[in-house]
This record gives sequence, structure tokens and C-alpha cells, in this order.
Amino acid sequence: MTSITEPRVRDFLLQGTRTGMLAYTASDGRPLAAPVWFTVEDGEVVFNTGGKTAKGRSIARDPRVTLTVDLPEPPYAFVQVQGEARVSEDLDELVRTATAIARRYVGPEQAEEFGRRNGVPGELVVRVRPTKVVSAFDMTD
Amino acid sequence: MTSITEPRVRDFLLQGTRTGMLAYTASDGRPLAAPVWFTVEDGEVVFNTGGKTAKGRSIARDPRVTLTVDLPEPPYAFVQVQGEARVSEDLDELVRTATAIARRYVGPEQAEEFGRRNGVPGELVVRVRPTKVVSAFDMTD
Repeated sequence: MTSITEPRVRDFLLQGTRTGMLAYTASDGRPLAAPVWFTVEDGEVVFNTGGKTAKGRSIARDPRVTLTVDLPEPPYAFVQVQGEARVSEDLDELVRTATAIARRYVGPEQAEEFGRRNGVPGELVVRVRPTKVVSAFDMTD
Repeated sequence: MTSITEPRVRDFLLQGTRTGMLAYTASDGRPLAAPVWFTVEDGEVVFNTGGKTAKGRSIARDPRVTLTVDLPEPPYAFVQVQGEARVSEDLDELVRTATAIARRYVGPEQAEEFGRRNGVPGELVVRVRPTKVVSAFDMTD
């Protein structure tokens, strides 16, 4: 067990354009995983999704999710954040978080455009409060 | 919907050392995701895990899993393979698949060593027969 605020864990999660693979549960109970663009704020994982998407509907049914980030090349590593999601539809927060997240993944030039596109009614700010964080570094060293 | 045998999908899954993020379900129903080393054989995803690991026990309870692979940089892309897992403890198959998978991720020099290490009683060959495959390419182009 480690913590999302542990510097090595936090730096690993936030390095470059690493995506988070979000595990959630379909309505029939089968487990799904899909990549999300995310950031870390106040010790929580933050991402955006639509309220009507598979992810948004899953979180409404059951807030338990896991976000896992890995280094898919030697020396291999991963951080797994298990947690509970809560959502907000606050428009200012939507635009702010969508812009901050877009800055990470598409760069500053396109961030505002992405922020405006995702910062609209129907979209959600999802914050995942960690309940358990697992990490493994230098797996093949 | 696409297919794991579609060349672009298959090539994406098998490029370089891309890992698969396996979504599975803990005993209390919460969704988890962890990276696995895998290959594709006969239209199925193949990986190894221990029978007593969280992944192995999850598959014994419920064979439904999802393996998602992504490109975590522009132009971003992912392939999501939903499917049903079945396991084998056949030692010859264990050594063969573990060696083939290790060749992909640690290279030919270390593949035999990894194959021998993972090809032992208690380890499983897991084959995931796809039930639904979703892909998205060039997401920010």
C-alpha cells in the first residue's frame, strides 16, 4: 500500500501524457476498462466524462472504480488507484478541469478549445477519492 | 464493433511491448484493472497468471474480463476486448505461452528464463475469447 500523495506515485501518475485506464462495471456486472485523460488534484484523481456515457452511468450505479496507469516498456511499472467516485455538474469546474486536463494531453494551444467543448451541460467532473493505492516500479530490473 | 482478427486491430494489440490492462472484479464486486503481458493466438488474447492471484481467483468466480490496450500519446487510440476467459494448467502450454509472451516483453535473451519461471504448477494459461471488440484510432487527429 502506498498513497497518491507519495512523490514517486504522484510523479508517475502525472508524467507526460500517460493515460489512466478506468475499470468500471457494466449494468450486467461485467468489468470494463477504458482509457481516460486525467489529472490529480488535492489527492484525488480527476477526469471528465458524459453523464450518459457507459462510464457516467456506471458511476451513477456504483461509485467504486479503479484507475491504473502503467509504463508499458522496460523496466515496467504501474500504479493502481482504487477509489470511490463522486460527480459534479458545476459548469465553472467543468471548464476549468477540462481545460487543465486537455493542457496535459493536447498541449496549451488546443487546451482552451477542448475545455470549451467538454465544459458543457451533460458533462461531469468525476473525482475519485483513493481507498487503496498499489504501486510496483522497476518490475524487470 | 470490430474484430480481433481485423489487421489494424491485431497489429495495434501486438505492436512492441504494449501491455494489456485487464479489468476484472474483486470478491466484493468492485472493478479492478491491472496490466498484463499478453499475446494473441487463434483470435484469442492469451496471458499467464497465478491461480491464487487476485486475477486468477476473479476469473474462477466469473470468467468475464476486458483487456484494453491504448496508445497514450497523440494521436491516441485504444482497442478494448471484452470476452470470456478459460484457464488451462497444462505445463507444456504454460512453458510455451510464457516463453512466447516473455519474448515480446523482455526480448529473446531472457525469454527462456521467464518461460521456465512462469511455466510451473500453480500458474495458469488464460485464454480470452472475444465477445465484443471496440476500437478507436487517431482520436485527436
